[in-house]
Amino acid sequence: MTTETPDHQRTSVLLGTQDLTVEDRPVPTPDPGDVLVRVAAVGVCGSDVHYYRHGRIGDFVVEEPLVLGHELSGTVVAVGAGVDESRVGERVAVEPQRPCHRCAQCLAGRYNLCPHMRFYATPPIDGAFTEYVTIESEFAHTLPDTVSFEAGALLEPLSVGIAAVRKAGIVPGSSVLIAGAGPIGVICAQAARAFGASRIVVSDLVAERRERALSFGATEVVDPTVVDVTSDIVPVDAFIDASGAPRAVSDGIKAVGPAGAAVLVGLGNSEMTLPVEHIQNLEVTVTGIFRYTNTWPVAIGLVASGQVDLDSLVTGRYGLDEVREALESDTDPASLKSVVYPGGAPA
Amino acid sequence: MTTETPDHQRTSVLLGTQDLTVEDRPVPTPDPGDVLVRVAAVGVCGSDVHYYRHGRIGDFVVEEPLVLGHELSGTVVAVGAGVDESRVGERVAVEPQRPCHRCAQCLAGRYNLCPHMRFYATPPIDGAFTEYVTIESEFAHTLPDTVSFEAGALLEPLSVGIAAVRKAGIVPGSSVLIAGAGPIGVICAQAARAFGASRIVVSDLVAERRERALSFGATEVVDPTVVDVTSDIVPVDAFIDASGAPRAVSDGIKAVGPAGAAVLVGLGNSEMTLPVEHIQNLEVTVTGIFRYTNTWPVAIGLVASGQVDLDSLVTGRYGLDEVREALESDTDPASLKSVVYPGGAPA
Amino acid sequence: MTTETPDHQRTSVLLGTQDLTVEDRPVPTPDPGDVLVRVAAVGVCGSDVHYYRHGRIGDFVVEEPLVLGHELSGTVVAVGAGVDESRVGERVAVEPQRPCHRCAQCLAGRYNLCPHMRFYATPPIDGAFTEYVTIESEFAHTLPDTVSFEAGALLEPLSVGIAAVRKAGIVPGSSVLIAGAGPIGVICAQAARAFGASRIVVSDLVAERRERALSFGATEVVDPTVVDVTSDIVPVDAFIDASGAPRAVSDGIKAVGPAGAAVLVGLGNSEMTLPVEHIQNLEVTVTGIFRYTNTWPVAIGLVASGQVDLDSLVTGRYGLDEVREALESDTDPASLKSVVYPGGAPA
Amino acid sequence: MTTETPDHQRTSVLLGTQDLTVEDRPVPTPDPGDVLVRVAAVGVCGSDVHYYRHGRIGDFVVEEPLVLGHELSGTVVAVGAGVDESRVGERVAVEPQRPCHRCAQCLAGRYNLCPHMRFYATPPIDGAFTEYVTIESEFAHTLPDTVSFEAGALLEPLSVGIAAVRKAGIVPGSSVLIAGAGPIGVICAQAARAFGASRIVVSDLVAERRERALSFGATEVVDPTVVDVTSDIVPVDAFIDASGAPRAVSDGIKAVGPAGAAVLVGLGNSEMTLPVEHIQNLEVTVTGIFRYTNTWPVAIGLVASGQVDLDSLVTGRYGLDEVREALESDTDPASLKSVVYPGGAPA
Repeated sequence: MTTETPDHQRTSVLLGTQDLTVEDRPVPTPDPGDVLVRVAAVGVCGSDVHYYRHGRIGDFVVEEPLVLGHELSGTVVAVGAGVDESRVGERVAVEPQRPCHRCAQCLAGRYNLCPHMRFYATPPIDGAFTEYVTIESEFAHTLPDTVSFEAGALLEPLSVGIAAVRKAGIVPGSSVLIAGAGPIGVICAQAARAFGASRIVVSDLVAERRERALSFGATEVVDPTVVDVTSDIVPVDAFIDASGAPRAVSDGIKAVGPAGAAVLVGLGNSEMTLPVEHIQNLEVTVTGIFRYTNTWPVAIGLVASGQVDLDSLVTGRYGLDEVREALESDTDPASLKSVVYPGGAPA
Repeated sequence: MTTETPDHQRTSVLLGTQDLTVEDRPVPTPDPGDVLVRVAAVGVCGSDVHYYRHGRIGDFVVEEPLVLGHELSGTVVAVGAGVDESRVGERVAVEPQRPCHRCAQCLAGRYNLCPHMRFYATPPIDGAFTEYVTIESEFAHTLPDTVSFEAGALLEPLSVGIAAVRKAGIVPGSSVLIAGAGPIGVICAQAARAFGASRIVVSDLVAERRERALSFGATEVVDPTVVDVTSDIVPVDAFIDASGAPRAVSDGIKAVGPAGAAVLVGLGNSEMTLPVEHIQNLEVTVTGIFRYTNTWPVAIGLVASGQVDLDSLVTGRYGLDEVREALESDTDPASLKSVVYPGGAPA
Repeated sequence: MTTETPDHQRTSVLLGTQDLTVEDRPVPTPDPGDVLVRVAAVGVCGSDVHYYRHGRIGDFVVEEPLVLGHELSGTVVAVGAGVDESRVGERVAVEPQRPCHRCAQCLAGRYNLCPHMRFYATPPIDGAFTEYVTIESEFAHTLPDTVSFEAGALLEPLSVGIAAVRKAGIVPGSSVLIAGAGPIGVICAQAARAFGASRIVVSDLVAERRERALSFGATEVVDPTVVDVTSDIVPVDAFIDASGAPRAVSDGIKAVGPAGAAVLVGLGNSEMTLPVEHIQNLEVTVTGIFRYTNTWPVAIGLVASGQVDLDSLVTGRYGLDEVREALESDTDPASLKSVVYPGGAPA
Repeated sequence: MTTETPDHQRTSVLLGTQDLTVEDRPVPTPDPGDVLVRVAAVGVCGSDVHYYRHGRIGDFVVEEPLVLGHELSGTVVAVGAGVDESRVGERVAVEPQRPCHRCAQCLAGRYNLCPHMRFYATPPIDGAFTEYVTIESEFAHTLPDTVSFEAGALLEPLSVGIAAVRKAGIVPGSSVLIAGAGPIGVICAQAARAFGASRIVVSDLVAERRERALSFGATEVVDPTVVDVTSDIVPVDAFIDASGAPRAVSDGIKAVGPAGAAVLVGLGNSEMTLPVEHIQNLEVTVTGIFRYTNTWPVAIGLVASGQVDLDSLVTGRYGLDEVREALESDTDPASLKSVVYPGGAPA
């Protein structure tokens, strides 16, 4: 560990529903194979907000104090045994998962489905609204100089988008309908464009969100209260739901043509009414994504080359003492993506 | 056309709901590329029964007199222009579909999804409860001597089973849950066994149907009123629904493990409530099958080699004047598969 | 047929090796399902040149007079039975193949491998160095106004490039080595870029060809007499050979990393010495492409959106009386792509 | 560690070319996550023989004393930290590889291609001709009581066969040509049968080896000096080389039909002359396999169910002092598979 790394750090902790505090915690020592990262920027995700407001997501319940935040970048400041010391000083984006690497899912290359997963900011594993974190060296992905810390943090939601468009089978010439123009929706639109989709229709109830989508990859936008996507849009090759809204999901699946795919990314009810006859008659494939695998290298390439713009997504910047404000910023319709800076927000 | 082929034939025609008659109709002349087949055996499918009882299946409505029957075998008795005359005399199984061969779906190898499809016994296209039919020469698949006409007819539901296990990704070692021990369920079980599945669980409400499934490929059977497939069965790699029952579909999907597949074969409601959270968290793929492509050669091989037994499925044999009895035989729980013989039922 | 279509046309015919003439031939009448196209532009392909110079390509031998040319665009001037008359007047690009649509390969979606294929300008099927040709209506692909006739003709080699990058598994983030900076090489580079490849290395012996590749998608170029691609380039995900040169093929395969792909597009010797141990140890997949399937819609989209530039490839324009000059233009190193205009070259 | 485990063990060590000795070595202590296995049976592989005779395989050179043997089964006698102690006493088959689990290949599910792999009996990693070995707990696969230790050892070559038929795309109905009726050839034939191949042609120069193949899955056998597989056998869907012979490889590839696959398993020259024109014109895919991933569970199922017979492959049994005899047994044409028993050969 370099001499500059302190023993203690400031950490934002969720004590209970809507109950946040900043604690003094020890800086961890990296285990063998790990690196210690001084956190630069942390994106606020809808799941962070959900834990903050409701104390749970499905079967994951906040029963002990929890550190939120899992979209992050920073700088390597120390390495554990077996890791090349030359990594110290590297700017990195963190892939915030620790799979077991040994189970059947891991060995098959589906480490996102590892039953032994320890994932940042998912009870009982702490996340990144803190000054220092550790991660496996291989999951601290080196950032080119041209990729900002903010964009580095947002490689996590971009990974979601990449996982979604991969599952949706987007290739050059594909047409895709995306429901929801929030952060994930517009990132999916950008990912779809980067994967070659020629027609990218984004639906959203809010006019300004639709407008915004046009600057992030959408080739057209629709208001689902005006346009019936099940008939007014010619069949699309793929549907990606980034809304979690039952009607949007059902209608979106019906908009998919023969042998097309529907990928459910947005979180909503545990059960939904789906158009089974349409799925059967057109052999539509419906699935979801659960995080991602092997996305950071691709994501970094897309941002470095300018094919995807993450920096422009950021609409709010907060310090570690302002995590509450960051988490509550989603009620502002003009807000798209808030970022927390554990070392202090830029001026 | 051979000298023995008559000008007229007897045809069983559905005039309206539960209204059947036998008519005298002209024997068709095969178009270029077609063959004329003297029908030997025709299996009764649940869809035939549904048209007979309800006059429609979803958007397909019987508005004109319709000839039912689409699972058939017979003998080539004449050929159209461009077809090798040596085919006359061949025993064949008929793949009862006429795709356009030119549209995007056909050119992509998905001719089952051809929007211009003319399919036997699907309004307004007539089927096979008649003495003579025509079909494209390539869709009259040559039967080895060791495959009976009855088995030849039942290659059609076996094709459904093959399409289902292909979509379900069944390979050696797979585990699969199949809901429903009717004809399609037990054929799917046999197909799964032929594709190498090592564990084949069949669920059905009826004890004698469960018992029967054990002789057709199931390695174990469960009564879903006693066994909770969502917890008592360890996760399966695949679920195939051959019941159309909403509860069976929902529970079956929940029984699927990480990255597994659910294939909905049974027809039920146009919409169903599905466990979306499970689909998302485990990245389960849900889809259906709509008929089949490129299955007859494989199906013939499986029957000829003894890997699949179709002959034992037949529980009732009927003449052309007994189509009503054949269609209504499904109310007998001991009935599995009825077969109509347009040339007269065997003694 | 419209009144303006003449009965006779001028046709450039290859009588024997390096023996061309222009004949007066009847304008064909479109068969049912076909359209009649007045040819606007025809690209010259290396295979045309090979037939002209050597009278054969492998097992395909010119034994009768043959019309060359298979990269073409034009205007629909008449339709056969069953084709919508509104197609008359449409600007189209022709997919120059006539598969049987019925064999096992066609039904599986691999119509390029149809054993009954009749392909333009492949003995004994005539091609497009003539004023009028017929083709299946579905293979006369509508051109947007923004795509020129020249680009429309060159959608054929772009289809080769698309087939190659599909087989090579190019996705966003891929690295690829392409051997040969001729027309196919630079088109493959453009296709690779359109499919998201982030690193596109083109090798060629000739400096000006390397230079040109940089303006058509290559991110870097190498002189294989200076750079050892088997060691100096870090492993690439894919190798595409567009040279046909044995050394380039062998070295290119060795440049491919674990689980990568090598796609052999260039035609060379019927046998080549390949690095089998490397193929085995890294599980590299080696294959080739034989024409293409289902590429025109994608190709049109890539050109219409500006992702691929075909117009700039054209370096020479010729009339029907100048086909010899067009075919011999390949000896000029500054020549990239020659185009023949059966209706007269633009000024 | 159980009280019964001794401190020292007897180990057969290769000192140099054809120079073997038995040494006294310490029994290792299992690292965290590992188990200690008392070795029951070890199959002799062609690679063991090659190291013994030639001191190297390609770039892998025996520079230090090396313990050979990598096909093994045994009993867990101790566990490392973090492993459930209840594993002690389990009969297991060992998957003899230690990938890094962290690199790009491992994370993508291709751990066989891990550049940091430590593989048994591959310089400088010791193998299994010894009484005790350690392996990751997850790679000590539990054997059902019905699977013998001998069969348990031979799950390793069966894994090769499974990897080969997976790559070859064998599914029900496939036809396959296998060159070579040695241990790998007949195991590939059995694997192909288990995966549903309906036609399995095995070629070999030796009559008794051909004869033997017929009892291990082959549906027909051919003498390649009499039968020209490139013409006398109708095209096959797949070719698997288990001979390493250049002529067999070249001819085998030519026997593959449209869109088929050739998988090179046998080790031969580092370079071979391949029929590139055939590969291109029929879009044949040529690749190799390098070991395997995720095969043991499937392999165990195939043996337990009787679909594959490994016990009958064993033609010689040897003690630890007879490793030389075991390694030299391959010169006896009646020998198929020799097995070494570090604890003493059965009577």
